[in-house]
Amino acid sequence: MTDPTSPLADLAPPIRSFASDNFAGVHPAVLEQIGRADAGHQPAYGDDIHTARCVERFNELFDADVGTRLTFNGTGANILALATLMGHLPGPHHAIVCSSWAHINIDETGAPERLLATKLIDLASDNGKITPDQLREVGHFQGNVHHVQPGIVSITQPTELGALYTPAEIKAICDTAHEMGMLVHIDGARIANATAALGGTREALRSFTIDAGVDVLSFGGTKIGAMGAEAVVFLNPAVAAGSEFLRKQVTQLSSKMRYLAAQFNGLLADDLWIELGANANGMALALHAQVADLPAIELGPAPEANSMYPFLPKEVLEPLQQWSFFWDWDESRNQVRWMAGWDTTRADVDQFVRGIRRLLEQSS
Amino acid sequence: MTDPTSPLADLAPPIRSFASDNFAGVHPAVLEQIGRADAGHQPAYGDDIHTARCVERFNELFDADVGTRLTFNGTGANILALATLMGHLPGPHHAIVCSSWAHINIDETGAPERLLATKLIDLASDNGKITPDQLREVGHFQGNVHHVQPGIVSITQPTELGALYTPAEIKAICDTAHEMGMLVHIDGARIANATAALGGTREALRSFTIDAGVDVLSFGGTKIGAMGAEAVVFLNPAVAAGSEFLRKQVTQLSSKMRYLAAQFNGLLADDLWIELGANANGMALALHAQVADLPAIELGPAPEANSMYPFLPKEVLEPLQQWSFFWDWDESRNQVRWMAGWDTTRADVDQFVRGIRRLLEQSS
Amino acid sequence: MTDPTSPLADLAPPIRSFASDNFAGVHPAVLEQIGRADAGHQPAYGDDIHTARCVERFNELFDADVGTRLTFNGTGANILALATLMGHLPGPHHAIVCSSWAHINIDETGAPERLLATKLIDLASDNGKITPDQLREVGHFQGNVHHVQPGIVSITQPTELGALYTPAEIKAICDTAHEMGMLVHIDGARIANATAALGGTREALRSFTIDAGVDVLSFGGTKIGAMGAEAVVFLNPAVAAGSEFLRKQVTQLSSKMRYLAAQFNGLLADDLWIELGANANGMALALHAQVADLPAIELGPAPEANSMYPFLPKEVLEPLQQWSFFWDWDESRNQVRWMAGWDTTRADVDQFVRGIRRLLEQSS
Amino acid sequence: MTDPTSPLADLAPPIRSFASDNFAGVHPAVLEQIGRADAGHQPAYGDDIHTARCVERFNELFDADVGTRLTFNGTGANILALATLMGHLPGPHHAIVCSSWAHINIDETGAPERLLATKLIDLASDNGKITPDQLREVGHFQGNVHHVQPGIVSITQPTELGALYTPAEIKAICDTAHEMGMLVHIDGARIANATAALGGTREALRSFTIDAGVDVLSFGGTKIGAMGAEAVVFLNPAVAAGSEFLRKQVTQLSSKMRYLAAQFNGLLADDLWIELGANANGMALALHAQVADLPAIELGPAPEANSMYPFLPKEVLEPLQQWSFFWDWDESRNQVRWMAGWDTTRADVDQFVRGIRRLLEQSS
Repeated sequence: MTDPTSPLADLAPPIRSFASDNFAGVHPAVLEQIGRADAGHQPAYGDDIHTARCVERFNELFDADVGTRLTFNGTGANILALATLMGHLPGPHHAIVCSSWAHINIDETGAPERLLATKLIDLASDNGKITPDQLREVGHFQGNVHHVQPGIVSITQPTELGALYTPAEIKAICDTAHEMGMLVHIDGARIANATAALGGTREALRSFTIDAGVDVLSFGGTKIGAMGAEAVVFLNPAVAAGSEFLRKQVTQLSSKMRYLAAQFNGLLADDLWIELGANANGMALALHAQVADLPAIELGPAPEANSMYPFLPKEVLEPLQQWSFFWDWDESRNQVRWMAGWDTTRADVDQFVRGIRRLLEQSS
Repeated sequence: MTDPTSPLADLAPPIRSFASDNFAGVHPAVLEQIGRADAGHQPAYGDDIHTARCVERFNELFDADVGTRLTFNGTGANILALATLMGHLPGPHHAIVCSSWAHINIDETGAPERLLATKLIDLASDNGKITPDQLREVGHFQGNVHHVQPGIVSITQPTELGALYTPAEIKAICDTAHEMGMLVHIDGARIANATAALGGTREALRSFTIDAGVDVLSFGGTKIGAMGAEAVVFLNPAVAAGSEFLRKQVTQLSSKMRYLAAQFNGLLADDLWIELGANANGMALALHAQVADLPAIELGPAPEANSMYPFLPKEVLEPLQQWSFFWDWDESRNQVRWMAGWDTTRADVDQFVRGIRRLLEQSS
Repeated sequence: MTDPTSPLADLAPPIRSFASDNFAGVHPAVLEQIGRADAGHQPAYGDDIHTARCVERFNELFDADVGTRLTFNGTGANILALATLMGHLPGPHHAIVCSSWAHINIDETGAPERLLATKLIDLASDNGKITPDQLREVGHFQGNVHHVQPGIVSITQPTELGALYTPAEIKAICDTAHEMGMLVHIDGARIANATAALGGTREALRSFTIDAGVDVLSFGGTKIGAMGAEAVVFLNPAVAAGSEFLRKQVTQLSSKMRYLAAQFNGLLADDLWIELGANANGMALALHAQVADLPAIELGPAPEANSMYPFLPKEVLEPLQQWSFFWDWDESRNQVRWMAGWDTTRADVDQFVRGIRRLLEQSS
Repeated sequence: MTDPTSPLADLAPPIRSFASDNFAGVHPAVLEQIGRADAGHQPAYGDDIHTARCVERFNELFDADVGTRLTFNGTGANILALATLMGHLPGPHHAIVCSSWAHINIDETGAPERLLATKLIDLASDNGKITPDQLREVGHFQGNVHHVQPGIVSITQPTELGALYTPAEIKAICDTAHEMGMLVHIDGARIANATAALGGTREALRSFTIDAGVDVLSFGGTKIGAMGAEAVVFLNPAVAAGSEFLRKQVTQLSSKMRYLAAQFNGLLADDLWIELGANANGMALALHAQVADLPAIELGPAPEANSMYPFLPKEVLEPLQQWSFFWDWDESRNQVRWMAGWDTTRADVDQFVRGIRRLLEQSS
């Protein structure tokens, strides 16, 4: 609730806030496909025509016979992807290497440690990206019986701080990892934003995934307009065996799977997902551009994907947040996160900027 | 595909088969609530108005301040319920006692053993029910350092074989378990059918759950008209602590939770879920009644809930299954499962019986 | 304490009871080797000369380049063996098939479920033995996504009820398992007794282990005269990879490993372990022979290894147990276990029989 | 093997190297107690008189009715201690906070993550010590459903880098932890060295353990003269429940437990363990003193316990290591570890220093 004495008391907040892409609803094309999938009886657990169509769509997307397993949410997708890779290494003494900022490392309540019963080796990173050199350094653990053995590297694209790996950077990580006997996972909860940012085509997607040598990919649907649907895509079919059983075992097998498939059938048709990713990125860029001239805000460089992490004066931060909610990022430094979604509009950006400017004027 | 030479070649199969309540679609009231929940932005992870309303509805249902946690599917609900109970016993050396037929024991790909890292002690049972005496017998393990310590009993209502516990039977199990220092879980994937069968009111539901002393309940939505939504309901609030964290940890926290809540908001309004359970039960009963006079079919007693497990002559089983699919139960004995759903109609029953009768006439 | 009014009040109990081979002390040859290993500093964690010699001895024993990993106790050996096999199957959705009597199933406080996070599928058995047919039957689970996938079969030789598999029987189990894509483990906590009973030579040992196709073996030392030492012997080197890391991970890596090695160096020299197994078996046989004519005792057939499970009249059981302790086996049926050890003497047998006979005379 | 061209070719290395206290043998008093415990049969699994005596001795040591559970090794002790504490927190979503240098964090091959299925939150530290402030900072995770919940703090005394906490520092950590709802574990693999350094009396031991509010302690025996024996001592009896079952479950229950107990009976009598700790500390100090004047060696401050981590010139490091082995600590910086043991003598120190000095003379 906005304080009646706030300078923003008489200004309507933007219809869609910049809090999170998880706050957005479902894209109409997704709802339409759910409606279509609803006609009559269908076999359960994925033996239905909608799931078959969805699997086909993913093959088309990667122009290869990939292994697609739908899941309910992102943590489920990551766990399934990693558990399957673990199953292809000899013994559960293998650790997962990731950035210190990785969602699997800090935002999944220890699900990886609990469900995979393994250690995460987190590498220091400013923006969530890690390098082949860091990976190589972890290699000194290999062969020493007292240390966990690095077996998997998991990277996030774009990272939890909105940074992007180039296709060449991911290829270098894959090459290094494979030389070291390791397998590679991408957490692609926001892969639509990455794809849009790196070219906006299926070829762009392939360039930093299957063509770069990635073994398995968590492909996000929820944040880009689905109701709740993610896909684990095994780009390296040699490491997919067992994933059907593991999906059930880690509680991610849907009985009425047609409704998960329908969501992706809505998003993947005509590359809608890329278009929605481009919208989110574009709106983040627009927001950045409109406040870039305000010296009171330490804004950082233009966003590579759909989020930015500005530092605000305290006297602006609080009334602005009260008026149109967004998350604190580092409270001790007045750093916040602004994030655009598939449904953010130019009007939302304009209105949000209007609020910021009014607060700055008042406080100066 | 029905064989063109089959006696059923020219008969249309029932529109809805008797294969599984998981083959059914979504009830219109559920879809409507999903649509309503779709308006605009809402906080993620359950901090939205639809989830708040859903939690309230469960409190009303049990006339108590219960702890409700929504999950994606039944295995997820069972794991969350059991993991939380495990957390309230001192140390993970506790086993879960269940029937040999329990879904957690044979139909969840070992998810309980993997995710709870514990043993299931399965008790022999003909119909999926277990007794206080069986429980007491397991008590001889208690205190012996070489044996797992029975800590939880999990029962299914109705059982995987369609049998029902009376409220008194469940109370007796709870009393015995609590005397032994154990906690009690109900797997209620088909609790709507049980509730309908035991009186069809909220009081009926309470009589065999909260009033009987059950600690936690997996409350099924998916099989009774949801798209994919279950609820873990902590009837004993003393054992609910930690469940919020565990839900995330076992991959069952939905970011756009309003869509899970909406499904229950559709089902719980005006006790629709009980009505749909009653329909399924009634259609199973009607099917049973209409074939009860056929000596070639060993049918067993009238169904207590929505399923029956008849023995068919081989020459009837195969063409019938080909014409309108249903699952084998025990192939070696020509035993099958017929199950009615929330959407099964009298016309479906009539048509299925028509097929059976025609096959029997042909084969005689 | 023997009741002063007992008929046995004035009879000294045998110096060594028939309670358990775990009640025995350490063989002098083992103590001597420990003393020898104690001279000066030695590298830790197995890089010492005593461990090297021990590894060599196991190679000689099996006439092959086997993979030997020493552990502290039997549960540790079983867990390490099974964890390593699990690591060579694609994913932890694999179950372990064993007899309902298996030590891993009922006497290890659920360690396998907890540490391997997997299900044990226990097969009904009268004497602890299972058959290829039972194994084949479990195969119907294979490929069904809702069920755990049988991946390992673990048998105990001799079984927990003192029964022996013939080499041909074990070969048949191995052949069937391997055809089904499964791996085979022997829990050989009392392998010395089995080896002595099946011929008493190294060739006998090989006939039911490496020659039969067994993949990995828990080789018991503790019960046959060690202080506390077991060995996991990978007979199939293809499944040994990772076991060094896993040993540390499951808490079974000894820092001063020379003292574990010394124990086996004492037992394996001149096949002492087989000799000690033969003594235990012989004493069990002698005890059986000396009470076989007593109609009041339902004794069963002559022991195949070092234990028997007689039924005693209640009025004999209690004072006998009070006088010279042994364990109840099935209290409800007055069944007990009598077990001879490496150190049991003819005098112990004679004295125990004296006590039995006196009690029977008194009670008749 | 020393290179024949080495300046040390004609100098005998010290009889006992400065590589590790794990390289030492067994103290005669321990061997003597093992011999005494070996007479005749004794009940297994701890129901023997030697274990009873050992439990009593620990009660005397702490002047309280503590809960003592013997284990085989240090990793086993840590796992048992932590698993039991975990069992007293509501649900396995709790993380263990420790220093980045903690043995449980880097030297146990991920055993804690695997066997406890939980995350370790490691805090940056130069010398292995952590502070109440660092702990408090981790508290910001508490209550947030997306993050693991800090539930246990584990500190090492002395740390893996040879640093000591004062009793007041440990008390402050315990107070902070308990305020935050957390429990406290000490990894005391070298607790003898800490006790000797902090006063050398039982009162000194109590001052930084039971009197400081520590909940559970891993009490090391192996490094201070045992063959292989550690004790988990529950100083807070309220958190000991279940530990008997857990010990078996985590593979740390010894069948012939009298031999573990005998080792502690040898060490605890007349406070021999403290005396041996004092010898190790004293020899480390002597070594430090004798090389402190050598400018070529960057030695750091005098050791607080029994180890130091000097930087050596490369041309000294290699021939010295070849002559009398010690471990590299940070190879990239020519940093090594020197460690004295319970059996290190003044002659060992003198001879080692002789070697160092000769190499320095040669290389200058």
